Amino acid sequence: MAQLNKSLSKTPTGIVGLDEITGGGLPTGRPTLICGAAGCGKTLFSLEFIVKGALDYDEPGVFMAFEEKAEELAINVASLGFDLEALQKDKKIKVDYVHIERSEIEETGEYDLDGLFIRLGYAIDSVKAKRVVLDTIENLFSGLANEAILRAELRRLFHWLKEKGVTAIITGEKGEGFLTRQGLEEYVSDCVILLDHRVINQISTRILRIIKYRGSVHGTNEYPFLIDEEGISVLPITALK
Amino acid sequence: MAQLNKSLSKTPTGIVGLDEITGGGLPTGRPTLICGAAGCGKTLFSLEFIVKGALDYDEPGVFMAFEEKAEELAINVASLGFDLEALQKDKKIKVDYVHIERSEIEETGEYDLDGLFIRLGYAIDSVKAKRVVLDTIENLFSGLANEAILRAELRRLFHWLKEKGVTAIITGEKGEGFLTRQGLEEYVSDCVILLDHRVINQISTRILRIIKYRGSVHGTNEYPFLIDEEGISVLPITALK
Amino acid sequence: MAQLNKSLSKTPTGIVGLDEITGGGLPTGRPTLICGAAGCGKTLFSLEFIVKGALDYDEPGVFMAFEEKAEELAINVASLGFDLEALQKDKKIKVDYVHIERSEIEETGEYDLDGLFIRLGYAIDSVKAKRVVLDTIENLFSGLANEAILRAELRRLFHWLKEKGVTAIITGEKGEGFLTRQGLEEYVSDCVILLDHRVINQISTRILRIIKYRGSVHGTNEYPFLIDEEGISVLPITALK
Amino acid sequence: MAQLNKSLSKTPTGIVGLDEITGGGLPTGRPTLICGAAGCGKTLFSLEFIVKGALDYDEPGVFMAFEEKAEELAINVASLGFDLEALQKDKKIKVDYVHIERSEIEETGEYDLDGLFIRLGYAIDSVKAKRVVLDTIENLFSGLANEAILRAELRRLFHWLKEKGVTAIITGEKGEGFLTRQGLEEYVSDCVILLDHRVINQISTRILRIIKYRGSVHGTNEYPFLIDEEGISVLPITALK
Amino acid sequence: MAQLNKSLSKTPTGIVGLDEITGGGLPTGRPTLICGAAGCGKTLFSLEFIVKGALDYDEPGVFMAFEEKAEELAINVASLGFDLEALQKDKKIKVDYVHIERSEIEETGEYDLDGLFIRLGYAIDSVKAKRVVLDTIENLFSGLANEAILRAELRRLFHWLKEKGVTAIITGEKGEGFLTRQGLEEYVSDCVILLDHRVINQISTRILRIIKYRGSVHGTNEYPFLIDEEGISVLPITALK
Amino acid sequence: MAQLNKSLSKTPTGIVGLDEITGGGLPTGRPTLICGAAGCGKTLFSLEFIVKGALDYDEPGVFMAFEEKAEELAINVASLGFDLEALQKDKKIKVDYVHIERSEIEETGEYDLDGLFIRLGYAIDSVKAKRVVLDTIENLFSGLANEAILRAELRRLFHWLKEKGVTAIITGEKGEGFLTRQGLEEYVSDCVILLDHRVINQISTRILRIIKYRGSVHGTNEYPFLIDEEGISVLPITALK
Ligand SMILES: Nc1ncnc2c1ncn2[C@@H]1O[C@H](COP(=O)(O)OP(=O)(O)O)[C@@H](O)[C@H]1O
Ligand SMILES: Nc1ncnc2c1ncn2[C@@H]1O[C@H](COP(=O)(O)OP(=O)(O)O)[C@@H](O)[C@H]1O
Ligand SMILES: Nc1ncnc2c1ncn2[C@@H]1O[C@H](COP(=O)(O)OP(=O)(O)O)[C@@H](O)[C@H]1O
Ligand SMILES: Nc1ncnc2c1ncn2[C@@H]1O[C@H](COP(=O)(O)OP(=O)(O)O)[C@@H](O)[C@H]1O
Ligand SMILES: Nc1ncnc2c1ncn2[C@@H]1O[C@H](COP(=O)(O)OP(=O)(O)O)[C@@H](O)[C@H]1O
Ligand SMILES: Nc1ncnc2c1ncn2[C@@H]1O[C@H](COP(=O)(O)OP(=O)(O)O)[C@@H](O)[C@H]1O
Ligand SMILES: [Mg+2]
Ligand SMILES: [Mg+2]
Ligand SMILES: [Mg+2]
Ligand SMILES: [Mg+2]
Ligand SMILES: [Mg+2]
Ligand SMILES: [Mg+2]
Repeated sequence: MAQLNKSLSKTPTGIVGLDEITGGGLPTGRPTLICGAAGCGKTLFSLEFIVKGALDYDEPGVFMAFEEKAEELAINVASLGFDLEALQKDKKIKVDYVHIERSEIEETGEYDLDGLFIRLGYAIDSVKAKRVVLDTIENLFSGLANEAILRAELRRLFHWLKEKGVTAIITGEKGEGFLTRQGLEEYVSDCVILLDHRVINQISTRILRIIKYRGSVHGTNEYPFLIDEEGISVLPITALK
Repeated sequence: MAQLNKSLSKTPTGIVGLDEITGGGLPTGRPTLICGAAGCGKTLFSLEFIVKGALDYDEPGVFMAFEEKAEELAINVASLGFDLEALQKDKKIKVDYVHIERSEIEETGEYDLDGLFIRLGYAIDSVKAKRVVLDTIENLFSGLANEAILRAELRRLFHWLKEKGVTAIITGEKGEGFLTRQGLEEYVSDCVILLDHRVINQISTRILRIIKYRGSVHGTNEYPFLIDEEGISVLPITALK
Repeated sequence: MAQLNKSLSKTPTGIVGLDEITGGGLPTGRPTLICGAAGCGKTLFSLEFIVKGALDYDEPGVFMAFEEKAEELAINVASLGFDLEALQKDKKIKVDYVHIERSEIEETGEYDLDGLFIRLGYAIDSVKAKRVVLDTIENLFSGLANEAILRAELRRLFHWLKEKGVTAIITGEKGEGFLTRQGLEEYVSDCVILLDHRVINQISTRILRIIKYRGSVHGTNEYPFLIDEEGISVLPITALK
Repeated sequence: MAQLNKSLSKTPTGIVGLDEITGGGLPTGRPTLICGAAGCGKTLFSLEFIVKGALDYDEPGVFMAFEEKAEELAINVASLGFDLEALQKDKKIKVDYVHIERSEIEETGEYDLDGLFIRLGYAIDSVKAKRVVLDTIENLFSGLANEAILRAELRRLFHWLKEKGVTAIITGEKGEGFLTRQGLEEYVSDCVILLDHRVINQISTRILRIIKYRGSVHGTNEYPFLIDEEGISVLPITALK
Repeated sequence: MAQLNKSLSKTPTGIVGLDEITGGGLPTGRPTLICGAAGCGKTLFSLEFIVKGALDYDEPGVFMAFEEKAEELAINVASLGFDLEALQKDKKIKVDYVHIERSEIEETGEYDLDGLFIRLGYAIDSVKAKRVVLDTIENLFSGLANEAILRAELRRLFHWLKEKGVTAIITGEKGEGFLTRQGLEEYVSDCVILLDHRVINQISTRILRIIKYRGSVHGTNEYPFLIDEEGISVLPITALK
Repeated sequence: MAQLNKSLSKTPTGIVGLDEITGGGLPTGRPTLICGAAGCGKTLFSLEFIVKGALDYDEPGVFMAFEEKAEELAINVASLGFDLEALQKDKKIKVDYVHIERSEIEETGEYDLDGLFIRLGYAIDSVKAKRVVLDTIENLFSGLANEAILRAELRRLFHWLKEKGVTAIITGEKGEGFLTRQGLEEYVSDCVILLDHRVINQISTRILRIIKYRGSVHGTNEYPFLIDEEGISVLPITALK
């Protein structure tokens, strides 16, 4: 059975269709990178992962937002039937908005991410989180001048997340020639999922593709998905082939 | 009902077809980014938003122009039946032309946007504006040397606009590989609309596409639109699908 | 009638077909940008605007050339039936060749465009010009080291041209990813016309397109045009649609 | 027979189909470069080379991992039926995870790769390895500041590997316009194999191509391959033509 | 008749077909730019212009070579029936090879082109040249460190050539996104001819196109041409349309 | 007959099909550039030129290798039936491997190529070589810090090779937008041959094209070629058209 413990275990996302394509969900205890252009659905995807975890799998979660305030997020997903405030009150999830202001940091001279570690650690403990989302950590780059130090700190962060044993999602905006603007794929590459929103002949389609999933068979095609009043649903046509 | 207040409310643009595609208009109290190449219709779009607001929805508006003088604007839209002067006299709208001159700024050493805040605040108060347009704030970049400070100031500006509770439009010229030349989409990303003016086989078409709309279902295709003597009209073919 | 004065008035170019597409010509009292690659016809287009103005509309004009000497220009358009010398003698037009030499400027330390203003002002006065062409002002960039100052000066120049009330054409060579090499479209964007000379399957076609025309309905397609012994003629197929 | 010793000898990979295409396997005693984008299968390919070597050809191997920890790797390939721990216990393979941390190196001032040499040498000796994988040495670049020295050291490394007489695989992530991000193909070019994971019309295919194989006839087309519960299998359609 | 003198006069090239397309040849007394990739035929084209001038139009010429030595040139065109040595002996042409060596220049500190002027002036006088070729002046750029000064000097050179009244050809190698590597088209733009050597479906074609010809009607299509034992011949299909 | 000596003479390569396309071989006494991507066959092509010269045309040759050691080369071509060792023993060819190590050079301060000249001169004398290959001199660039000096030295080298009267081949790896990574085509442009290895619809083809051949008619199409147990054979379909 020791043997068994050593095979890759998976955490269901609760997102319709996705757990079928991945053969069970995201890699447990490892970070997954969700990337794509603005508006492709990264925030909704990762938030649904947290909400479904709390509601359906009894796994509390932390959603650390760098772009939208907690109240804004709550408003944005209200129409999807997600009641973030209720979930927070029940200690099932914790939404934390981190405001990054270059000036602040420069004044205080805080060039490392210790503050973030403490805050995230506290949030995780407060709900005993098994799931964590960082949406989107790339924003730290516009707030911090010393990129080299930031990158070293990010390595430390992803290491620390693995140590914590949480199943994490990191989101990243699409860059030119890279999967993400800041090359996050160099740090987070156990599981990489790309979302895309294409317009072909003036008709739009949303597409999901698993770029990489270490240690797992998975569907490798491009799968159409929808965002509607029930959240995200992926159409796993020819999944797991 | 507190719950209800927390769902996203929308502000009708009055632009034919658009409110249908967006399921009601632009996000109330948040800034929307309108981007596209020169001549795609950004100025007309945002001005019609202000004019229709004042005339049809009893929402006064401020149009802050960085490119065209108030008189020029008035002339440019006269043939669309918009009488900017009358509207200004009736205190229904306020058009304010901000002239940016690098030399002036450098002499006075004003590297922050306090002047702009004061001026905009004053304009908003003067008509009790509910709608604000900044067309196009990117021009500040050619006037200011210290880009880092300007970017920090822009963050402050967008924050301040949200605080004010106004429904705002920011316009931005198309950049290479980015939605706008100065990457405004990093700051304003609740709602992003792209206008395009394509020539295919020597026939031109104007196209509108909602790149992103946080918190809202919306039409996601490319919608043809016209600019004629009645302003802008979008053809919401297969809207809200 | 004050109302009427405030709508956009237009200045006929006299170029066959173009006044039809633009619904009357170029915007009176404002600068128009003509851009395109080498040999696309910018110089001929703008010179015909001056010549036809003088001959057919009784509007004297100034042609300020930065590339070709007055005598060379005269030779180049002789076969089109334009007699520049006669027109100059009759004080109907004024052709002025401005020679830019980096060394000269550096020695004298003249980093502003005051010399140009004086010279242009003098030329305008000398024929009581209503039309002005600057072909092509981009050449100033290779002559001047301090680009920032030059750009500030250009702003001042375009401002000054508007003040003067002349209907102006500025030409600009096509740049990579921009309409002009030096991004003149940032300063002159009331009316922008693109000329193109394409070779498809070894057959060449000349094409004209109105990229932007503030305040005016206009034909928006690509229109073929010819340069022959009678100058430029645009074929306004489906004009003003 | 001295003559015979001097012709190129080959080491079977044990990967289904590949030894057919290469006419016997990878060049014995030389390094081979496996390159391709994230998720294309580089790690699995090179690990199967080590595992099959140990199991089927009685050639012990060293897998030096710069990205995944030994335990993670073991988990990742468990479902392929590879039992890395058992193989390690039997001294048939050695998996060594090298953690690169810029800060560490900078503190100790270790700008050369002596540490790596010693460690790799020790690993090779410990199992009497005939096969070596370095997956992926490019990671050294983000850990070391002085790129010039690193490159000189890499040359030394590849030289040293040849001296050792081991058959090696180096993996490299796809770069823009280059086969690998850091141009490893400049150092390792006896045999270069490209893996690709394409999505055409939303259906994905994995493709293998031998870019170069010094001293050997080989199949030169693009060959489809699969990753399933039995590892990698290449379809040698029209091999060795 | 003064009028007549002022229209553009043309100098026949003697190249089969070309004089038909250009309606008489290259612009007399002005420089023409011939550009294209390596091997497209720039050297042969310009040399034939010189040889035909000397033989058929009684116009002596100077060929100033920066790439090939006089003897090499002579060998290269022997099979075309051009006997450069005989022509030189008869004082009909002058071939001058200018060797550019960075070190030489740096030692002597000659940063201007005075040496070149003197040498070229001397060569022109020695045969009373009416035609001049500079093949290819771009080579000066790899020999001179101070590009700004070189560019100023080039301006002076082209000015000086016009003053001399010679009909000149300047050749330039194709650059990325520019007609020539060093942007010579900025200085020489009265007449610009592009040569191209395309391979389509493994069949090669040589193509000539007149990009620009100030002051002249001309064929504007792409014209196929051949290089064979009789030199260059252009096929003026639908010339002068 | 002096006349005759002055026409371009050619050196047969002995490569099947190529001498037909070039009308006799490579230009005698001049350097030829062979360029193409990794694995396209540059090394085999140039080595066959040396081997065939020694065996079939009684012209001894020097192969100076910067990438592969003499023994490795010997192994790599053994299966083509080339016995480099025997040829070396018979003094018919000389293979010389030049190892470039930045550190060495920097220590000794040898920034010029004198060492290379001496070594190459010695090798040429030792077999009375008529043919020389430098494969690939671009490697010098990664070994030498001062690129400007290196380029000046290369000029000197190519000059020196011409003086020596040897028929030389220089190989160069394909660069982005240039024929070779280091722009060798600027120095070696009498004869330029491009090799390409394309995969179209997953089927590979090798293609040879003569980009330029000063002083010679030659086949200008793309010619397929094979590398098999008898070396390189070019299919001269429609040669010399
Ligand atoms: N155990 C497995 N079973 C089946 N497929 C797997 C397994 N592990 C990985 N894969 C597939 O192989 C891909 C990753 O291969 P990997 O060798 O890690 O790629 P690379 O090293 O090139 O980034 C995964 O994205 C997945 O598609
Ligand atoms: N409440 C909602 N109902 C339906 N669709 C929504 C809703 N909220 C957002 N969307 C859709 O999802 C898109 C934004 O998703 P989001 O996760 O914010 O993207 P990203 O984080 O990748 O920029 C919106 O542009 C909209 O099309
Ligand atoms: N009064 C008008 N009537 C009809 N069309 C107009 C009018 N004014 C402008 N247009 C059209 O709209 C285009 C410019 O729109 P504008 O909003 O100024 O573009 P942008 O701000 O994106 O550069 C013009 O190029 C013209 O095609
Ligand atoms: N002995 C051989 N027999 C057949 N083909 C060979 C042999 N050696 C090399 N090749 C083929 O030639 C290619 C390499 O040629 P090479 O001349 O080394 O290329 P380059 O120098 O351009 O990188 C190999 O990738 C292989 O496809
Ligand atoms: N006198 C003429 N008659 C006919 N066509 C001419 C005449 N002069 C110029 N052209 C055509 O116009 C082109 C150049 O136009 P020009 O206005 O100088 O271009 P640009 O200023 O855009 O570089 C020439 O290349 C030629 O094709
Ligand atoms: N004597 C000749 N006979 C026939 N064709 C030749 C002759 N000399 C050169 N060529 C062709 O012309 C091409 C080179 O022309 P060249 O004028 O040197 O080009 P460029 O100066 O543009 O690099 C050669 O590549 C060859 O195809
Ligand atoms: Mg988001
Ligand atoms: Mg505008
Ligand atoms: Mg011009
Ligand atoms: Mg890997
Ligand atoms: Mg040449
Ligand atoms: Mg090679």
